[in-house]
Amino acid sequence: MTYSSTPTPLQNAKSPIDRLLALSAADMAAIDVIIIERMQSPVGMIPDLANHLVGAGGKRLRPLLTVASAHLCGAAHEVHHKLAAAVEFIHSATLLHDDVVDESALRRGRKTANLVWGNSPSILVGDFLFARAFNLMVETQSLEALGILSNAASIIAEGEVQQLAALRDIDMTEAVYMDVIGAKTAALFAAAAEVSPIISERPVAERHALRKYGQELGLAFQLVDDALDYGGFESALGKSVGDDFREGKVTLPVIRAFASANSEDKAFWTRVIKEHNQDETDLEKAVSILRRAGALQSTMEEAKRRSDNARKALTIFPDSPWKTALSDIAEFVVERIS
Amino acid sequence: MTYSSTPTPLQNAKSPIDRLLALSAADMAAIDVIIIERMQSPVGMIPDLANHLVGAGGKRLRPLLTVASAHLCGAAHEVHHKLAAAVEFIHSATLLHDDVVDESALRRGRKTANLVWGNSPSILVGDFLFARAFNLMVETQSLEALGILSNAASIIAEGEVQQLAALRDIDMTEAVYMDVIGAKTAALFAAAAEVSPIISERPVAERHALRKYGQELGLAFQLVDDALDYGGFESALGKSVGDDFREGKVTLPVIRAFASANSEDKAFWTRVIKEHNQDETDLEKAVSILRRAGALQSTMEEAKRRSDNARKALTIFPDSPWKTALSDIAEFVVERIS
Repeated sequence: MTYSSTPTPLQNAKSPIDRLLALSAADMAAIDVIIIERMQSPVGMIPDLANHLVGAGGKRLRPLLTVASAHLCGAAHEVHHKLAAAVEFIHSATLLHDDVVDESALRRGRKTANLVWGNSPSILVGDFLFARAFNLMVETQSLEALGILSNAASIIAEGEVQQLAALRDIDMTEAVYMDVIGAKTAALFAAAAEVSPIISERPVAERHALRKYGQELGLAFQLVDDALDYGGFESALGKSVGDDFREGKVTLPVIRAFASANSEDKAFWTRVIKEHNQDETDLEKAVSILRRAGALQSTMEEAKRRSDNARKALTIFPDSPWKTALSDIAEFVVERIS
Repeated sequence: MTYSSTPTPLQNAKSPIDRLLALSAADMAAIDVIIIERMQSPVGMIPDLANHLVGAGGKRLRPLLTVASAHLCGAAHEVHHKLAAAVEFIHSATLLHDDVVDESALRRGRKTANLVWGNSPSILVGDFLFARAFNLMVETQSLEALGILSNAASIIAEGEVQQLAALRDIDMTEAVYMDVIGAKTAALFAAAAEVSPIISERPVAERHALRKYGQELGLAFQLVDDALDYGGFESALGKSVGDDFREGKVTLPVIRAFASANSEDKAFWTRVIKEHNQDETDLEKAVSILRRAGALQSTMEEAKRRSDNARKALTIFPDSPWKTALSDIAEFVVERIS
């Protein structure tokens, strides 16, 4: 695997995600009905703003995990659909708040809700979607699933605060970075996959396997995202490039490049990250240093290891189209950069 | 009851709230232990910021409702304490987000968290406390209590968005205003009181009575708050005065004054609220118009009616110190302005 600046976009029409979407078409249609129904409110600003985000597409990767895991454990029923919708609502609430915190301007190829409506509506509609997620979970009558997802929700918030506290910390360690992405991203992937065997009352080994699959897939996904922030094309990704750099968010490529930097490069990173003193040529310079240090390549290799772990976690399940689909997704996530 | 600008502060040492706090001392100590324990995190910014708000005091009125309702229904056990802590966490999360939305500077006599740490930590720590509230609820193993509180959480968010959408709307009706305060304030009071009879498996009539008590108390509380915003003293209240006016938030005093205003006063309200064009003498002028129109007085009378409704809802319970305490609180809430 070599790193180039031409990503295979996640939106690729023949991607394994699209194949899984096709396999799950009936389930995803049922989940869409729940999502649309539960984001309604007589307060018009709520469905308007929620629909701007939810209706913009996105691959519904997390609810797909819940659905595929459900089929891997027997079948997907209405209760799985409700949990899948709850997972998507938690994710949507997080995105709305993240975009306020990060002052993001672009999401899924659209202007962010904070840019269109302002910060306050984004905060409050995020709270609404988060609460509606819990309404849905309560309806499933599964205290165990509620426990898994409410625990994931507090871990996500913890990871977001930790990331914020570590902003511009050029001395951030790899261990802290892995903690942050494990919490802010992988925890929800893990929970989305784990709730299905719980609902289906499957053996604990299957719970652990799917939790592990989700966790490792989430790590792989975020590692790739963090590499793409220094290499993708804005139009293909539907999000801005260089956001992390401009915010002074320290990610694995920067940690690794800084660790092996000569004194001139160390001074560069200290200026642009720690002192947060950047001009418009600095992103290009950063990318050039990252490439020279092999930091994007090594980040992608770390992602590949996580992806392999995710696929290995599935070995306890008998072969099926669902197992193949989940395995292919793990492989695909790290090949967005080919 | 006549309206004057000298409030009896909620912090009054001999208030019924203090008497209920004394009566509930053992319960409130147990709840404090849970609150302190559950706002901990290895991410230091979380307990720091949470403690700034939670440790600043406040009367813990909502958890007190849960405790007193529990005793009214027999006894308060650990499960009630956990729900009371969850209620306080939901309230705290709402305060953190509200202060960001309202750009507030003062809360409980302290600088707000958004002023000290910034908006982003306030948003994310609010999310954390909200998630921790659900962790606690899951531990109680009561799906019914979870349903009540998660439903309240989505109604609160809905009310907050509705309030935001109605900002500067000088044509806001009383019905919309009552919807907003019913959602943003009274829903949590109602849920805090209702969860105790649910946990204690009491007859549905007691659930309805305590829900009604909480709802009407919450309305009374918010009506008084909205009157005090045009009449209290900053030092006594521990919050800013004139905040609603400066934000262009339309509350019952303004709705009533506008309804009976002559053309000169209508032009004033249109300028300061709808066009949001204010100078530093306008708050004083607003107060003078509100007094002349009897709008503060009539708002307090509406609060008194709600308080009476709350007390009447308790009649189905046999006499006890807890019933007296809850009744006295309803009376006290509307006599903060004596």
